Amino acid sequence: MAGNSFGTLFRVTTFGESHGAAIGAVIDGVPPRLPLDEAPIQAALDRRRPGQSRFTTQRREPDRVRILSGVFEGRTTGSPIALEIENTDQRSKDYDEIRDKFRPGHADYTYWVKYGIRDHRGGGRSSARETACRVAAGAVATLVLGPAITIRGALIQLGPHRIERARWDWAEIGRNPFFCPDPVAAADWADWLDGVRKAGSSAGAVIELVADGVPAGLGAPVYDKLDGDLARALMTINAVKGVEIGEGFAAAALSGEDNADEMRIGADGRPVFLANHAGGILGGISTGQPIVARFAVKPTSSILTPRRTIDIHGRETEIVTKGRHDPCVGIRAVPVGEAMMACVLADHLLRQRALAGSVPDGP
Amino acid sequence: MAGNSFGTLFRVTTFGESHGAAIGAVIDGVPPRLPLDEAPIQAALDRRRPGQSRFTTQRREPDRVRILSGVFEGRTTGSPIALEIENTDQRSKDYDEIRDKFRPGHADYTYWVKYGIRDHRGGGRSSARETACRVAAGAVATLVLGPAITIRGALIQLGPHRIERARWDWAEIGRNPFFCPDPVAAADWADWLDGVRKAGSSAGAVIELVADGVPAGLGAPVYDKLDGDLARALMTINAVKGVEIGEGFAAAALSGEDNADEMRIGADGRPVFLANHAGGILGGISTGQPIVARFAVKPTSSILTPRRTIDIHGRETEIVTKGRHDPCVGIRAVPVGEAMMACVLADHLLRQRALAGSVPDGP
Amino acid sequence: MAGNSFGTLFRVTTFGESHGAAIGAVIDGVPPRLPLDEAPIQAALDRRRPGQSRFTTQRREPDRVRILSGVFEGRTTGSPIALEIENTDQRSKDYDEIRDKFRPGHADYTYWVKYGIRDHRGGGRSSARETACRVAAGAVATLVLGPAITIRGALIQLGPHRIERARWDWAEIGRNPFFCPDPVAAADWADWLDGVRKAGSSAGAVIELVADGVPAGLGAPVYDKLDGDLARALMTINAVKGVEIGEGFAAAALSGEDNADEMRIGADGRPVFLANHAGGILGGISTGQPIVARFAVKPTSSILTPRRTIDIHGRETEIVTKGRHDPCVGIRAVPVGEAMMACVLADHLLRQRALAGSVPDGP
Amino acid sequence: MAGNSFGTLFRVTTFGESHGAAIGAVIDGVPPRLPLDEAPIQAALDRRRPGQSRFTTQRREPDRVRILSGVFEGRTTGSPIALEIENTDQRSKDYDEIRDKFRPGHADYTYWVKYGIRDHRGGGRSSARETACRVAAGAVATLVLGPAITIRGALIQLGPHRIERARWDWAEIGRNPFFCPDPVAAADWADWLDGVRKAGSSAGAVIELVADGVPAGLGAPVYDKLDGDLARALMTINAVKGVEIGEGFAAAALSGEDNADEMRIGADGRPVFLANHAGGILGGISTGQPIVARFAVKPTSSILTPRRTIDIHGRETEIVTKGRHDPCVGIRAVPVGEAMMACVLADHLLRQRALAGSVPDGP
Repeated sequence: MAGNSFGTLFRVTTFGESHGAAIGAVIDGVPPRLPLDEAPIQAALDRRRPGQSRFTTQRREPDRVRILSGVFEGRTTGSPIALEIENTDQRSKDYDEIRDKFRPGHADYTYWVKYGIRDHRGGGRSSARETACRVAAGAVATLVLGPAITIRGALIQLGPHRIERARWDWAEIGRNPFFCPDPVAAADWADWLDGVRKAGSSAGAVIELVADGVPAGLGAPVYDKLDGDLARALMTINAVKGVEIGEGFAAAALSGEDNADEMRIGADGRPVFLANHAGGILGGISTGQPIVARFAVKPTSSILTPRRTIDIHGRETEIVTKGRHDPCVGIRAVPVGEAMMACVLADHLLRQRALAGSVPDGP
Repeated sequence: MAGNSFGTLFRVTTFGESHGAAIGAVIDGVPPRLPLDEAPIQAALDRRRPGQSRFTTQRREPDRVRILSGVFEGRTTGSPIALEIENTDQRSKDYDEIRDKFRPGHADYTYWVKYGIRDHRGGGRSSARETACRVAAGAVATLVLGPAITIRGALIQLGPHRIERARWDWAEIGRNPFFCPDPVAAADWADWLDGVRKAGSSAGAVIELVADGVPAGLGAPVYDKLDGDLARALMTINAVKGVEIGEGFAAAALSGEDNADEMRIGADGRPVFLANHAGGILGGISTGQPIVARFAVKPTSSILTPRRTIDIHGRETEIVTKGRHDPCVGIRAVPVGEAMMACVLADHLLRQRALAGSVPDGP
Repeated sequence: MAGNSFGTLFRVTTFGESHGAAIGAVIDGVPPRLPLDEAPIQAALDRRRPGQSRFTTQRREPDRVRILSGVFEGRTTGSPIALEIENTDQRSKDYDEIRDKFRPGHADYTYWVKYGIRDHRGGGRSSARETACRVAAGAVATLVLGPAITIRGALIQLGPHRIERARWDWAEIGRNPFFCPDPVAAADWADWLDGVRKAGSSAGAVIELVADGVPAGLGAPVYDKLDGDLARALMTINAVKGVEIGEGFAAAALSGEDNADEMRIGADGRPVFLANHAGGILGGISTGQPIVARFAVKPTSSILTPRRTIDIHGRETEIVTKGRHDPCVGIRAVPVGEAMMACVLADHLLRQRALAGSVPDGP
Repeated sequence: MAGNSFGTLFRVTTFGESHGAAIGAVIDGVPPRLPLDEAPIQAALDRRRPGQSRFTTQRREPDRVRILSGVFEGRTTGSPIALEIENTDQRSKDYDEIRDKFRPGHADYTYWVKYGIRDHRGGGRSSARETACRVAAGAVATLVLGPAITIRGALIQLGPHRIERARWDWAEIGRNPFFCPDPVAAADWADWLDGVRKAGSSAGAVIELVADGVPAGLGAPVYDKLDGDLARALMTINAVKGVEIGEGFAAAALSGEDNADEMRIGADGRPVFLANHAGGILGGISTGQPIVARFAVKPTSSILTPRRTIDIHGRETEIVTKGRHDPCVGIRAVPVGEAMMACVLADHLLRQRALAGSVPDGP
């Protein structure tokens, strides 16, 4: 309970169910006098919006964001910024058939056990629709971070198929429906995911996030480490099952020598690292290198293939989830992951300012 | 700043540096009238204690815990429980040679940038010595969880070498110096790690944690999901670079059908899952199945092999970290991981009680 | 910053400016399956609504509340409850004349210094309009508290004129426009306040709150004492300058003997107190007696009498605040105070349940 | 539970019982590189220390503070500062006679109801001994505030006897055992309190706190208002029953004109207020004027006069509290109040820095 907020100084609270009146976010702690209107938030939402290709749900949500407070004459005032998105395309009837059944892999059963009441329409609060609010908040966080910090995400694995890192090209991200930086992989994936979709199955994915321009010194030991906060932020995205920083799980197999990011003095007289196995974070604090995080998304649980389950009356049954679902929710998780990283960094940027009066830029 | 606490209702605050006067923890929110003295805390600390085999640091720390408050006549009072461990074996001189150098892979550089001051003796606050406080807090959390919930950890990968899961035997954990559940792997690892140690190198590891007996219904959507809190708790342990739940990163490669944990009604009339790909958590809430988490620990950064680095004066130099270090910090991370999981579960157990007046046990 | 939330488990976040698009509240932590629709919230808002007598502002706000989330088929779901109230009667032009001037006694100057930007229309976020959200949240808190706990407030002093406590009759509260429990005082006050209003002046007030039926055992030592949380909650209401519990400031003048609330065993075998100087709280924990709190509201700062001030350009000037203002904001502070007390008690009720699994009812 | 911490960025956690092994505090969020050793903390503790005159308890507590962490080579490191004070003069036997009885006016009964267990020795956690930790934390907060901000407290009422404000002289504070700024009153009080003490009775008091040099702009609307946080901080001090800011309760009787703090431009071109009825806070944010708060302390509950009470077995009985008690706990509450104000201001100073990168100093 009381789990619908995150952040310490840049603090986001969200609300809303998949098929309720509206969803929204209240963003507290935004410094005053920053230029803001609906446009950048809407642009961020549009990147996540469903129905943009055959690989995402055909549910049509215009997802029109409205700023209710906290902005006056085009600038933030320091007051909480409330954002609202009305729910419009609510085909609740799609869910009537499954209203008493627990969909395997969904939160249906656990919400039922915990709350003893169930909003069966599209998952209610546990719906991925909630991630629209994260994306909206992320757009505001981006404003707080300023133009020197950029956060980009890419799909690096779809189902069992990984990209070839040597072909990485950020410019490709916008040219395919997968946020994929490898044009060859993107083409292969399109065929493969078509097959998955037609088979009534679904696929998982791995997303990589990179934040450039983050100054050294962000993060708060010991339990508010930057990587700890990132891990939590990403793990709370629907369907995420793993998070790693820098080398991640692969670090376990490296030797101490190979994993060390050695240091030298650069041509400009400032410290440089000769590698970035650490993913830009040491001891929970940013090093000034790019921050690299990855997270794994499980395959969409709503599939057309029948699965065995039970219902709320304790009877055994089968379930087929028709509705309109993404064959791979991992695709639309890319802008969501970017947004969560932006929120975490914005929070730590403000925290660092509290500590030092400014953000450090090296020794 | 203000990052030395965690938990909402079961709340732990720790303090202390590697070579200061003492380290300790204040544990707030412990329900009253639970039987407690130093013994179970000391037993937990002893499992983590260094110097117990040639595979852990030879630094000798008796790590005698003392309860300063919160316990009266052998029972908790509801007041904060303060625990203190004096630092005794402080060979600070070991660190004189490196007092101005940044050890690659350590927090030396980031603390310096962030704070502009450095306690070079053994890493100060960033030292793994801090994890003793986590273990002490975990022992109190275990008391709150009660005997029906058990949490066990195992090393499942040392460097590049994984266990054979078919040989998993929890009883083996206590029979080798690695917390390894596979006796064959344990024997191999001993030889291999000896080689690593003698070569002045170090190794990483992967740890698996399993919590049995956790009732369904623990966890708080949306941002305080049980897996989100676990991810944060484990990622904040020193040297951890990745966390996963259930299938984790492997889930990305599964099909929707294969990843679904189907449900049936068991012989006792209660719901049963036919698999546990989810690792016991759906929608951020426990399912009643075992909770399974894994985390990856990078190789110890303090190695005898010289590495290139710089110093606080901006000069290029080399570094060899002599001191007395674990060739694999992942080994002693096993009880630390167990403790963090216990703290997270204790917190959510109390939170669930607040919501419902009791812990649920099914629909 | 990030100061627009309060409560630990029953947690309220509000947003909105006096003359923005809407104001609202997100209430997190409400237990599931409680019956709820707009009606009781609307009823609470109607008690606070302006324009109901000549002693409150003539600004007409229908203050229609809309539940956006957290309620399904007439019952709470455990998800955050978002409430929205559109702003309709926004005569912003009233404020054009004073847009650059700091109104003495208002937050105009301090917001300007702190944020460097000013929403001059009706005070923006600092407007008493924000208290509508407190009242809405209080209605939900009342639901959490259940019917056994009742919270009532009364105006016991208007300007310099106090009620006669011997004439106290709760039934009178609804019969006069002052929430005054003393019919004689109420009649006198009407004449007196008419004079104040016509003179272009304003008056302060003192409000007393009484919570009956609160079980013993609520409150959390040491810094989350029930009276500490009440003091904060009441002091944050606009224009409040003092808070006291039980005897309050008068306790300073009593002897130890006179101030002691002696105890006996009642006819039903349960403890009884022979007095309630403590106001129902000892050591920060409820005693089971009525909880009694009082708070003082300063006279409305917006008055027709010209006052000397400066403007944002650093020039000396005079100000007359026309607009439509309450001659005594203390009157409408009565339901606001009740709401804040309800929120604090609901939070501590849930906290106690977390500690003990239930709310205690005696030794 | 979990109620033993306060503050957002400057965060204090305390522990310890009156007759346990030790009491202490962990102070998190202190910026690095501030000069600190035990001396200023000890000096603050000495001001509060009992046994310094016949008007405070004769319990002798050397109250030797020891810094356990967070300071290296005489400067803060940014790590949590743990302070410990051993309990030495523990005459627990004094309390044997009352171990089963509830002392009227104490937390004995409420702790018993809430926790079902009682540390009868000197009140356990509810003892005023806990306030030593507040004073220690306040000394660290003072360091964070810097020399430009000064906080001073004075006893302005003892029992029913008030000072004459026209005789206020801060220099008198250190010349009498009452922290009284009025030398005439101090002399009268000595005689009067002697009588109270000899009669086995006790007296209450009112304390006034003044913070000079606080910049405008500190405080966070809406629920984290500076006065709201002060009210909570002061109300949580043992035996406090009322808090007010500026005019406080007297504001209710003023007219809007009289209460307005008009503004002009001063000789230095900066804004000046012509009065300070607001007590230095408007809209929850500091104005730059002195911050003025007052709090009322009830008469000591431990008195020699027999009072009727009950015991834990539900039997009616009488009680006489022998022990060694202050005839007026309000006296030693002066440094405690100063400390709490310092902690609140330090927290808001850091919060303001997070918002703006610096502390503002006017428009």
